[in-house]
Amino acid sequence: MDHSLRHRISAQVDPEMRGAPGLSRFNKVVVLAILVLVVIGVMETEVHVLRRFGEAMAAMKLVLFTFFAAEYALRLWVAPLNPRNRGMLSYALKPAALLDLAVLITLLMPFLGFEGAVFRLLQLTRLVRLARIGRYSRAMNLVVEAIRSRDTELAISAGLAFSLMLGASTLLYVVEGGIQPEAFGSIPRAMWWAVATLTTVGYGDVVPVTALGRVLAAVTALCGIGIIALPTGVLAGAFSEAIRRAREERSRGHPD
Amino acid sequence: MDHSLRHRISAQVDPEMRGAPGLSRFNKVVVLAILVLVVIGVMETEVHVLRRFGEAMAAMKLVLFTFFAAEYALRLWVAPLNPRNRGMLSYALKPAALLDLAVLITLLMPFLGFEGAVFRLLQLTRLVRLARIGRYSRAMNLVVEAIRSRDTELAISAGLAFSLMLGASTLLYVVEGGIQPEAFGSIPRAMWWAVATLTTVGYGDVVPVTALGRVLAAVTALCGIGIIALPTGVLAGAFSEAIRRAREERSRGHPD
Amino acid sequence: MDHSLRHRISAQVDPEMRGAPGLSRFNKVVVLAILVLVVIGVMETEVHVLRRFGEAMAAMKLVLFTFFAAEYALRLWVAPLNPRNRGMLSYALKPAALLDLAVLITLLMPFLGFEGAVFRLLQLTRLVRLARIGRYSRAMNLVVEAIRSRDTELAISAGLAFSLMLGASTLLYVVEGGIQPEAFGSIPRAMWWAVATLTTVGYGDVVPVTALGRVLAAVTALCGIGIIALPTGVLAGAFSEAIRRAREERSRGHPD
Amino acid sequence: MDHSLRHRISAQVDPEMRGAPGLSRFNKVVVLAILVLVVIGVMETEVHVLRRFGEAMAAMKLVLFTFFAAEYALRLWVAPLNPRNRGMLSYALKPAALLDLAVLITLLMPFLGFEGAVFRLLQLTRLVRLARIGRYSRAMNLVVEAIRSRDTELAISAGLAFSLMLGASTLLYVVEGGIQPEAFGSIPRAMWWAVATLTTVGYGDVVPVTALGRVLAAVTALCGIGIIALPTGVLAGAFSEAIRRAREERSRGHPD
Repeated sequence: MDHSLRHRISAQVDPEMRGAPGLSRFNKVVVLAILVLVVIGVMETEVHVLRRFGEAMAAMKLVLFTFFAAEYALRLWVAPLNPRNRGMLSYALKPAALLDLAVLITLLMPFLGFEGAVFRLLQLTRLVRLARIGRYSRAMNLVVEAIRSRDTELAISAGLAFSLMLGASTLLYVVEGGIQPEAFGSIPRAMWWAVATLTTVGYGDVVPVTALGRVLAAVTALCGIGIIALPTGVLAGAFSEAIRRAREERSRGHPD
Repeated sequence: MDHSLRHRISAQVDPEMRGAPGLSRFNKVVVLAILVLVVIGVMETEVHVLRRFGEAMAAMKLVLFTFFAAEYALRLWVAPLNPRNRGMLSYALKPAALLDLAVLITLLMPFLGFEGAVFRLLQLTRLVRLARIGRYSRAMNLVVEAIRSRDTELAISAGLAFSLMLGASTLLYVVEGGIQPEAFGSIPRAMWWAVATLTTVGYGDVVPVTALGRVLAAVTALCGIGIIALPTGVLAGAFSEAIRRAREERSRGHPD
Repeated sequence: MDHSLRHRISAQVDPEMRGAPGLSRFNKVVVLAILVLVVIGVMETEVHVLRRFGEAMAAMKLVLFTFFAAEYALRLWVAPLNPRNRGMLSYALKPAALLDLAVLITLLMPFLGFEGAVFRLLQLTRLVRLARIGRYSRAMNLVVEAIRSRDTELAISAGLAFSLMLGASTLLYVVEGGIQPEAFGSIPRAMWWAVATLTTVGYGDVVPVTALGRVLAAVTALCGIGIIALPTGVLAGAFSEAIRRAREERSRGHPD
Repeated sequence: MDHSLRHRISAQVDPEMRGAPGLSRFNKVVVLAILVLVVIGVMETEVHVLRRFGEAMAAMKLVLFTFFAAEYALRLWVAPLNPRNRGMLSYALKPAALLDLAVLITLLMPFLGFEGAVFRLLQLTRLVRLARIGRYSRAMNLVVEAIRSRDTELAISAGLAFSLMLGASTLLYVVEGGIQPEAFGSIPRAMWWAVATLTTVGYGDVVPVTALGRVLAAVTALCGIGIIALPTGVLAGAFSEAIRRAREERSRGHPD
């Protein structure tokens, strides 16, 4: 019988086995559970939160562990129904499934300390895998296509940014290296300032103090506008193009 | 008689009952009065201003209270003329009218302190309601349409930004958590730095001090350019498209 | 005789009387002289520079005064040849000519102190007047047209930015006003922080210290990306449109 | 014989003599060697690194010197095969070849100190020369064409930015010059603040403290958004146009 329990579960658990577009109700719960787990993983690193909500979070983690363990078992059980998997074991040995298993194991080990929390963030990759459906998939394709279609121009922008960074930090090292050895005493040190300036972050923990240094820093900061404008302009052009092409294809009757 | 006083007042008071495009003279005064009230609400929180102009501002508030009370009464009176409202009481119970009434009441209570001032800022929503006419309406539609047409791409950008933020703060927490416990002692703490860096705000109150931390921060700052370039590029493409479509529709003879 | 000295000087001095496109040789010298004067005006406010190069700068100013006085006299002399001016006196009373005269007078009064230097910066407007020719004129039209064609959208962006600024500073005033009265003790004070954050400048002289304040600040900083992305996207779309329209008109054979 | 060793080496060494697109295997090694040399040049300015890896870096430099000397000799040897060079000596006297020779010489002089390291960064220009092939060349043309096609608009943006900078620093000098003489005591000093604000870098080492100064600074910071949005919008429009034109030319059958 085609609509047996196993098939129905498969349609709920495996996004590829679902006929309708979008996420199944079960996978929406999975997404929510992952987000809760990530929030817990982030929050339990903070002592103040841990002291107050530590027990509640531990209980929540136990619930989530049970849920993810059951979900993992279900996925194993229905894996053979998906023609892309060659049986249960083959599915279990896929990198994605192994990662899920590893995350599951770290949940059981509270003595892992923050390494566990850090590791658990890897489960966010699961969200990406789940997002590869429906309109998110199309939008992601548009974004990826736009970036990829201009990857050489973006690489040139990056090369230009890198050269400017190198040039600016070399000049500041020569000009201010003797006066502020802690901040500009070597090119790698001066790079910390150069990155902060060219990206317009501007922490201000390290700033030139001589007149010449400030003139050079001002020129660098003005170049920083180009460093932002160039990739933005390239991406904007690529998105205009990608959107128009997608619209043209749709109007020609291509289903997408 | 069609052009009775009540009908003429309705055309002045209710933007929907006005035949001509744009705001009526009366509603331009209302817009001005709201702006004055907001400025007073902002300024009276500052002790130095209050000491000097406190009495003038209190007098001004009394004048504005009288004006808004009269305006509210007029709107109630002419409400039945607008077919969208089913009588005076039905209009009075609309959320927008209730909000206006509540703002009116807070004006009378000087002992409310800053809560009153804060609450009064809600009257800015009135400006949005009044702006929903004429060319502002068309321009707002263009902006809203451009954003909405690419909401999935913008959500992906936001998801990417959030993941980068999470990744960067986790790494800095691991690298600098032990050295600067106040700033990087937990992932939520490190997030304060990560947001400031990825948005290129760069307060500089919290900066990494180790070599590895600075390398990671530099990479994060460079990623921040993408965080700005991606949504800007998406929006720019969407605006190009929306502007072209609007022009095509106009040239096809569609009145808009 | 058509090519009398006065006519030849008129073609050199008055950009509108010049047959060929671009600036005449004489006006290129004027541009250079204005730039030198501005640099001197900027530099003489700095004591260290004044002490060292004060005499050289005073001599230079005398030379420039003589030059601008002669240039002003020449312009008066050839003014009647331009049909747009109705005689010498009518030209002399134009606001632009009066401004040039005023700048000339301030050059003679060294006792004016910095007010003189500041006033002299007004001569930069002369550069704009001279730039209104040839390819700069076309490019300026493109820039102005692109901005003007989307002025309502830009006004909406500005309104949104202003509302966000008001909302953020009100919230921070409520949350941190009691803890940091100097920085967040009133809404106008909190606005200083809000502007620095929303524009992504991020001086860092004023930052929230409570957890709730930092969460609100993080949200504000993330909104700041939109504040930059929205007008940039609108302008990018407008420039795409303006460039395409200019190209289409050129290909249709319209001379521009 | 056409495929003699010298011809084969020429095809490997001289990008112009290579039939296939892209870099030859030999030149990929050259690119890598240049990058290694740049990294060493950067790193050896840092005392901590020098103390630890100084000997390894010196050995690496010797290896690289040998490699670049051999490469230089090979290029001289095969130069006559390229019809663009008129013999070996003519090639050796080209500025590019002279620069390569000079970099080679600095490698031999460890006593040059940081001047040597700085000078060696000039070898990065070699990368640009090597990059002028294949898809990088096409992408660079697109970037250069987009920037050049709108150079007047970008010059206007720069002029506007410069005027704003001058105006803002003059105003702040007038308003805060007396209170913070170190930071705003002259227009050139105030410019340091103005650049940091208009580019949204915002170091925060220098900030206005008076109410009027802060209002002016807030207006300046808001203008800074336009300073970024204007060139970005111009570039985005230019890239849209350049991409479309390139696509149209390709679809018309023009080989590029």
